[in-house]
Amino acid sequence: MVRIIWRRIWAILASRLTIRVTIDVFDQVQSGEVKAGVVPIENSTNGSVVFTLDNLADRNGRYKDITVDGEIFVDVHHCLVGHKNPSPVLELDDHGDGSGTCTPTLMDPRPSKPKSKPLANLRHIKRLYSHPQAFGQCNAFISTYLKGVEIFDVSSTSKAAEIVSQDTTGTWAAISSELAANLLQGLDMLARSIEDRDDNTTRFLIIGKNTTVPKDWGLVKQSIGKPSTRTLISFTVPHTAPGALAEVLSGFKAYNLNLTSINSRPSLLAPFQYIFFIEFEGSKYDDPDGRVQGALDNIDRVAQGWRLLGSWERYR
Amino acid sequence: MVRIIWRRIWAILASRLTIRVTIDVFDQVQSGEVKAGVVPIENSTNGSVVFTLDNLADRNGRYKDITVDGEIFVDVHHCLVGHKNPSPVLELDDHGDGSGTCTPTLMDPRPSKPKSKPLANLRHIKRLYSHPQAFGQCNAFISTYLKGVEIFDVSSTSKAAEIVSQDTTGTWAAISSELAANLLQGLDMLARSIEDRDDNTTRFLIIGKNTTVPKDWGLVKQSIGKPSTRTLISFTVPHTAPGALAEVLSGFKAYNLNLTSINSRPSLLAPFQYIFFIEFEGSKYDDPDGRVQGALDNIDRVAQGWRLLGSWERYR
Repeated sequence: MVRIIWRRIWAILASRLTIRVTIDVFDQVQSGEVKAGVVPIENSTNGSVVFTLDNLADRNGRYKDITVDGEIFVDVHHCLVGHKNPSPVLELDDHGDGSGTCTPTLMDPRPSKPKSKPLANLRHIKRLYSHPQAFGQCNAFISTYLKGVEIFDVSSTSKAAEIVSQDTTGTWAAISSELAANLLQGLDMLARSIEDRDDNTTRFLIIGKNTTVPKDWGLVKQSIGKPSTRTLISFTVPHTAPGALAEVLSGFKAYNLNLTSINSRPSLLAPFQYIFFIEFEGSKYDDPDGRVQGALDNIDRVAQGWRLLGSWERYR
Repeated sequence: MVRIIWRRIWAILASRLTIRVTIDVFDQVQSGEVKAGVVPIENSTNGSVVFTLDNLADRNGRYKDITVDGEIFVDVHHCLVGHKNPSPVLELDDHGDGSGTCTPTLMDPRPSKPKSKPLANLRHIKRLYSHPQAFGQCNAFISTYLKGVEIFDVSSTSKAAEIVSQDTTGTWAAISSELAANLLQGLDMLARSIEDRDDNTTRFLIIGKNTTVPKDWGLVKQSIGKPSTRTLISFTVPHTAPGALAEVLSGFKAYNLNLTSINSRPSLLAPFQYIFFIEFEGSKYDDPDGRVQGALDNIDRVAQGWRLLGSWERYR
C-alpha cells in the first residue's frame, strides 16, 4: 500500500518536474488540486536547486500552507538522444562511434574514461544541446565519442531534448534524462548513463499541506526500525544586526542539534539581505526532551521572521 | 592613482567576465599572467554565483595561491539589443512600440509598470533571447512592450547577444548587458535599463595572490576613515560528524564575530558532503584582541579541512 502511494505520487508529479518548472507543483499543492508534490532540492554534483528554495522562501505568501513532509533520493542518469544515422554505409564504418579514447589536453592531461558506450553510430552528430551543468557531468563521454561536435548551451536538459525533437536535419543530439526524452515524440536513444560519476544523485522533497500526509506511512517506520529525522526552517535576521545570524546558529549547538545543511536566497526586501534555510537532525513531532522546541524558541527570539517548513523521517 | 588602478583592473578583467567564464580569470591570476582578477560573487536579485564559489572551492588544488583581496559593488542594468526596424512606415505607426500598458493576468493581477521606454520601434521583434533569470528581472518591460514575442532561454545574457548578433532576419532581440552588446558587432540599442528593480546590484570579489595587492590602496583608507573589514574562509566538516558544522559556527558567536554570509557547494568527495563558505566582519590583518585568530583556531580544531581565502576592507 505504501509502495503504491509512493509510486503514484512519483508518477504524477516527478514526470512533469523535468519538463515544467517547480512552480507548477507548488501551485497545484497549494490550491489542493493534488495532495502532495515532489520537488528537487539538491543534487550531489550541482548543489542546491534555487528554484525550489525560492518557492520555499515564499516571499509573496503565495504558498503559505505548504509544508515539507518527506524526501526521496533518486539516482540521476543522463542519456544521449537524437536521431539514428539513416545511412547504413556509415553504420558499418568501424570508426563510426568515435575512436573510444579520450584526447589528453593541456587543461585535462589525464582524461577519465567514459563508463558507457554509444548504442548507435554517432558520426553524423554535428550539434549537441544541453544545460551547461549536464555537459560538465558528461565530460569523458563527450571528449571520447563526440569530438569536434558544436556545443549549444540551453536552459535545461529537457529543453535540449525538446529542441532536438524538432530537428529536421537528423544531425542534432541532446543530453537529457531518459524520462524527458520518453515524453517527447520521435527521439532515438543513442547512449545511456553517459555521466562521469556513478554517484550522481538528486534529493527531492515531498511537499504537501501536512494533514494530507498518508496515514499509513507509519507502517514503514515499524518495519525498518527507528529512522533518523530532519526538520527544515527558513528565517531572516534584522538587516541592521548581522550578529543575529551567529546567534540563531549557535542555538543549535546549545541544544545539541546537528545541522545538516544551510542555504540562503536573497530576501528581495533589501539588497544582500537573505532568507536562510537550515536543516537539522530532529523532529518537531518527536521531541521528548524539548531540544527542537528550545532551538525554535531561540530563533523566535532572535530572527526577524521565521517559518517551520516541516519535520519528516529519513529512510536511508 | 588608486582610481587608475581600479579602472585598469576593471577594464581588463570585467569585460571578459561577461563574455567568458569565470574560470579564465582564475587561471590567469594563478599563472601570474595578470596581477588581479574581478569575479562576480553574488547578485542582489539572484543570489550567489556558483561558478565563482566552485572555483574558490578549488577541489583539485588548481588555484592554491589565489586569495580574495577586495570587493566592488556594481549596479546591473539590462538592455534590449537587436536590429532596428528597417521599415520607416512601421516606425511611424503609433502603436509601434506597444500599447505602454501591462496586461493583468491571473498569475499577475496587478502587473508593475516598466520604468523605461523603448528607444526604437519594437513591433518587428518576433524572438527574444536571454537567460531565464534576466527574463525574470525584466517582467514589466516584456509584458508591456514585447507582448506575444517568442521567448528563447539560453545559458547567459552575453550568449543571447551573440546569437542575436548573427541574426539575418532582423527580427530577433536579446536582453543583455550594455557591455556585452558593445563588444559584439552590428547590434542596435533598442532600450536601456529595462530591469524591474532599481536596486539590482552585483558584488564582485577582487582575487589576486595577496602580495600583488597594490600598495597605495592604503591611501583610500586614510581619506574616508576606518572601513569595515571582511574575511572569507572555506571549510569541510567530517562526513560522519554533522555536529561539527554547528561547532564551527558557534565559534563565531563565542568570539563575537558577525557572520555576514554563508554558502555551500558540493565537495564532490562524497554525495551531499559540502564545502562551506563563511564570510564575517573582521580581518586577519587587523586583529588586536585576537578574536579572528580565536575563531580560526576553533575551525582548525573542528573542521576536516579549511582555508583562509582572504581579508579585505569594505568601502561602502
